[in-house]
Formats: sequence, structure tokens, C-alpha cells
Amino acid sequence: MAAKDRHASRRNKLISKIKKADADALLVTSENNVTYLTGFSGDSSYLIIGPNITLMISDTRYTTQIEEECSGVDVYIRTARDQMADVVGKLAKKAGIRKLGFESHIVTVKLRDSIDKELKATELVPTSDLVEELRSIKDSYEIAETRLAVRYAERGFETLRSNLRRDLTELQVAHDLEHSMRTFGAERAGFDPIVAVGNRAALPHARPGKDTIGSSDFVLVDWGAETTSNYRSDLTRVLVTGRVLPKLRKIYEVVLLAQKRAIAAIRPGAECVKVDEIARSTIADAGYGKKFGHGVGHSIGLQIHEFPRFSPISDEVLKPGMILTVEPGIYFPGWGGVRIEDDVLVTRDGHEVLSTVPKEFDQQICDIR
Amino acid sequence: MAAKDRHASRRNKLISKIKKADADALLVTSENNVTYLTGFSGDSSYLIIGPNITLMISDTRYTTQIEEECSGVDVYIRTARDQMADVVGKLAKKAGIRKLGFESHIVTVKLRDSIDKELKATELVPTSDLVEELRSIKDSYEIAETRLAVRYAERGFETLRSNLRRDLTELQVAHDLEHSMRTFGAERAGFDPIVAVGNRAALPHARPGKDTIGSSDFVLVDWGAETTSNYRSDLTRVLVTGRVLPKLRKIYEVVLLAQKRAIAAIRPGAECVKVDEIARSTIADAGYGKKFGHGVGHSIGLQIHEFPRFSPISDEVLKPGMILTVEPGIYFPGWGGVRIEDDVLVTRDGHEVLSTVPKEFDQQICDIR
Repeated sequence: MAAKDRHASRRNKLISKIKKADADALLVTSENNVTYLTGFSGDSSYLIIGPNITLMISDTRYTTQIEEECSGVDVYIRTARDQMADVVGKLAKKAGIRKLGFESHIVTVKLRDSIDKELKATELVPTSDLVEELRSIKDSYEIAETRLAVRYAERGFETLRSNLRRDLTELQVAHDLEHSMRTFGAERAGFDPIVAVGNRAALPHARPGKDTIGSSDFVLVDWGAETTSNYRSDLTRVLVTGRVLPKLRKIYEVVLLAQKRAIAAIRPGAECVKVDEIARSTIADAGYGKKFGHGVGHSIGLQIHEFPRFSPISDEVLKPGMILTVEPGIYFPGWGGVRIEDDVLVTRDGHEVLSTVPKEFDQQICDIR
Repeated sequence: MAAKDRHASRRNKLISKIKKADADALLVTSENNVTYLTGFSGDSSYLIIGPNITLMISDTRYTTQIEEECSGVDVYIRTARDQMADVVGKLAKKAGIRKLGFESHIVTVKLRDSIDKELKATELVPTSDLVEELRSIKDSYEIAETRLAVRYAERGFETLRSNLRRDLTELQVAHDLEHSMRTFGAERAGFDPIVAVGNRAALPHARPGKDTIGSSDFVLVDWGAETTSNYRSDLTRVLVTGRVLPKLRKIYEVVLLAQKRAIAAIRPGAECVKVDEIARSTIADAGYGKKFGHGVGHSIGLQIHEFPRFSPISDEVLKPGMILTVEPGIYFPGWGGVRIEDDVLVTRDGHEVLSTVPKEFDQQICDIR
């Protein structure tokens, strides 16, 4: 499907949802949602969409870019003197919109109030996650892009692994990783890579610092790539760079078992809370329940954390086309930790693990003398 | 001043503002504002602050990191089962807060409603930009960090300039620039660098692509660095890489004059709208008024676009300690454009231009044969 048809098809699906939400049109303010619906790659731009209107509001910085990137979309260019809220009010009136939906999970209280002030005959209707619900089911283009994001990440990791040296700092490894993923074609890293040696690996969101690879016996790497069209991957591995510690092997095997069991449960109709529970109980049964506090996974796409999630408070059910991470972990503050993460596509009759980086414990042992 | 004293001093100033806003405490939800007030470098964490409370709400991923980074702050760690809104409600009740301020310019309508639902005897009070007003005046630490961000950017640009080749694509130049700034000590680029050759330079927010440096006679580079403590710089130069086009020289001189005049007007007490007007009218008087649509500048700091701004609708007045960009431009769609940007500190009796990259036209001419 050509890009313009893909975006038009998404907009058509959204229009059905807007009608169901009893609104005449929706004001799309989320940058990612605007990108998803139009292909526009800039920022600071809103979209008013409904059965009778597809109007982007942008500014002079983007006039040419919108012409190049978007089709089937009318454009209103505001000047440096126009406040966004005024413009929305004026255009809603001109289009005769009585009920204008807005994204209540995106729009701030202040913005809602300032738009509301400019609206005369138009009522603002709160909606939630209309576009995000569409985005949770990836189409064939998005699945292909995610595969590419995984591939860039994998190639970057192969380079990282083959270049590991004892004198490199976490920060150098992280920066080189992003640069190398870009060399392979990535737009950038999918998020700030985590490169955490030894006890730093106990921090699920450690920031890479000046500790060297040689200062510890293992390193946790949590990384991903972003494609030029902004789809992302998110993987984690723990490489053994020094002595093979029995404690590390022991918790690694528990985390790996938890991860494999959770992945095995992924299929259309499976409850997200159940997938979370399978990993969580595997870790608890091994006696490490208190060493695992975060959710088991999240969806990926234009954002690194999308909906739905694998968590104890998720109420979602898996559907074909969803892509989620599965990433249980065990952390000992002051000692270190293990997390293993892959990206999994929900298929029509089960699942496909998109990432292929080896994950058996013995495969993590590197000789970097 | 030690980091802990710096953060405590900022919190004390904020508490005065909270009292003036007639609230018992403020719920700080902006990630940058939490960082500014506590030194915490993670995300997904809120701060409740008032005369009798300084309480951070985070999750198990950050327990150790908060201990390392923050002092003078109590911490509540929520589990994967706790919704943030529930926790805020519970803690506000426990602390006996009757009026809880919230950041109406940050908090979404949905989050406000979900917190409100959990609050019994507590009233939510909208506030706007309380922390951002403090952040607009940089303290000595922040000024030093910004100088560093400028220096990383300048060193990166020197490397870029000396490595320019006709066969390099915009994207390669942009990626190499970020990598080189990191080598000099930057955390990352302050924003996605713009590297735009020839007619691409007419797009004020062009994305670097596959066009090569050799495919045109000039290249616009808009770039900056971010320090490890997240302060940013933002500069723009146009390098002449081929023929010296008379049209380019002509508009370059107009933009440079507009920029220098605007900078000369920067001092405490000057109106932001006036600084904008000086640059804008210089360009208009030269006959290019319709070729310049964006604002003349913006503040920089923990975010790349901060408050106040130089724009026709700004109502702010400059104060010592503010740091803003000055970046007029002239753009011919289909042909190219020129923008010249420096970072300027408002001093007690005038201003200091923090960036020192040469900007006379003849200094932009590169020999890359």
C-alpha cells in the first residue's frame, strides 16, 4: 500500500471511532498521532479530522515539509502572531463543528481551557486513546519497520560485542552503539541505551557512566534502534565479560525461564495480566519475588512505551498485530542484576519472536582478554 | 554551592511561590521540573512539595538511583500494582493537604480527573509555570553548564568543518557531529541536528537526508549539545562549500545585520517583543519581510525551547540570568535559506554572547576540494 493510502485508511478507521464517540471531529494534538495519521515528521502541528474535514494546523517552518510529506490533507499555516488556541477556535467555527473531540490523555488542562475560551458554538468532548487503539494493532508496513528496527539493533549489538574491551567505559560503549546502529541505517537509538556493569546492572534504568567494562564480570545492555519512519525496537542482554559467577548463572536461568514461559503464553485472546503473572510467578517460585518490581513488558511502535502493557494491573487482551517486549528481571541492589528482553509479534495463531540475538547463558560468555 | 544546597535553595524559592498561589503544596509532574528541584535524572516520578512536605513518588526501577542522586527528599516507592493517581490521593490525604496545586500546563485533562477522583478532602488548584519562572533565571551553576554545552557544540562544529567532504550525506554529517560532541564530553546532541544543503536550507526544520555536501554550494547547520546534567546549546551557521553565490552573500548580510542589531538590544528591562521587532524590521526593511516567519529566539536550559521567547506575541521583559537564542532567518522555498543563531546571556548591565563561532560571511567560505 502506498504511504498516502495507508494514511487515508488509518484516517478512515479513526473517523468511525469519532462518530462512535458522538463527536463531529477530533482535534489530534499528539505529535505521534499526527505522524501516524498523515506521515508528517515535524512537530508543533495539530490535525482536525472528521467526516467532512482533514485540516492540519502548522506554522511557516513546515509549509514545504507538509507539501512533501502529506497528501489528502488541507493545511492552515499560522503566523508567529497567531496563538494555536485562537486558530483552533476560528477553524472549528468556520467548519461548523458543534462537538469537537479532544485527546484528554494528551491535552493539558491549560490548553483545554484556552481552546475552550475561544470556542463559541462548539462543545469540547473528552476522548481517550482513540488513535492509540488503532496504533496498538500494527499493519504490515509497521511490522516490516519494526523488523528493521530489530535488525538495526541486532547489527549494532554484534558490533558492540565484537568491539568490547576492558578499558571502554559504559558511556563509550553506549555512544559507539548508537553511532554504529546509525551506520547500519537507523535514525537514532530507540531510547538512551543502558550499558551497566556489575552492581550498576541492579538499576533497571541505569545511566551509562565512567565505569569500565573491565571493572566487573558482566554488563547489562538494554538498547534498541529507531527507523527513519520512527518505529522502535527494545532488547536486553547480559554479557559475561569476566569470571562466570555461579550466582549470575543461577538468576540468569530463572529470568530466562520466566521470559520463555511468558513468551510461550502469547497468542490472540491471551490476557496481558496473565502473561505478566506467568513471568512473575516463575520468579517468585524460585524465591526472587521481591527482586522483581517492574512490569513484564510494553508495546513498542512510534513510542518506546505504548499500550497495552504486560502488568499486574493491565486489563487488555492480546490481538494479532500487537508487538510487545517481554522483559522480566531479577535485581540485587549493590550486587547487580539480570534482565532478558525480546520483541514479540502477536500473530493470527500465536506469536513470533522478532529478535534473534542468542540468549542461552553460555552464549553470553565473551572472551575479551 | 553543593548540589544539595542548590536544589534546596530552588525548593525554598518555589515554596514562597506556592504560598502566594494559595496552595498548601504543589504536585510537580514535569520531568524537567522534578530534575531541577531534586537532581533526579530518571522519569515517571512526581514530587509533592510544600512548607511541610518534600516527597518524591517513584517506582522500584529508581529506588537506588534516587538514593544516589537526591538529598533532603522523602521517597515513596510505588509497586507495579499501584496507579500513580491512587498514590497521590493517598499521600495528599495522609499529609493533610487541603489545597494541592498542580501544573495545569503539564497535567493532562485525564490525569487531573483521575487524581481528582482519588482526592476526598483535598482541592486541586491549577497553577501555571511556577517552576518554569524560576528556571527562566539561570543560577551560576546553570550558566556554567550552558557555557559547557556551547563549548561542546563549538568543538563538534570545528571537527565537522575540518572533516567536510563532497561525498558525505547530510545524515552522515549530522550523525558524525553528534558522535563527535559526545567524544568531547556531551551527553548527546541538544536536539536532532539540522544539516541542510542548498534548497533544503529553506526548510527551517529540515531533516537531514541523503543529499551530499557536494550537491550544492552551501550547507546550513543548526546544532547544539547537551551536557551530562542536561543543559543545552543551540547554534546555527551556514557554510559556503562551493561557489560564492551573490544572492547568498546578499541575504546573509541582511540576516547577520538583523541578528547583531537584536543582540545589541539585549539588556535587563528590554522587552522581548522589542528584540523580536528589531530583527524582524531589519529584514522587512531590506525587502525580505515575507521570507521570515518564525520567532527570533527562545530560552534554552533543561529543555531546548524554554520561556521567555523573542516573538511578536511575547509579553516578557528580560532579566539578568536569562539565556536566549537569537536566530533570524531568510528563506526562499526551492532555493535555500540563511539562519544565523547564537546563545546570549542577559547580564546585570547588558549581555554576553556565549558562542564564539565566527559568523562574518567571508569566514564561512570553506575549501573542500
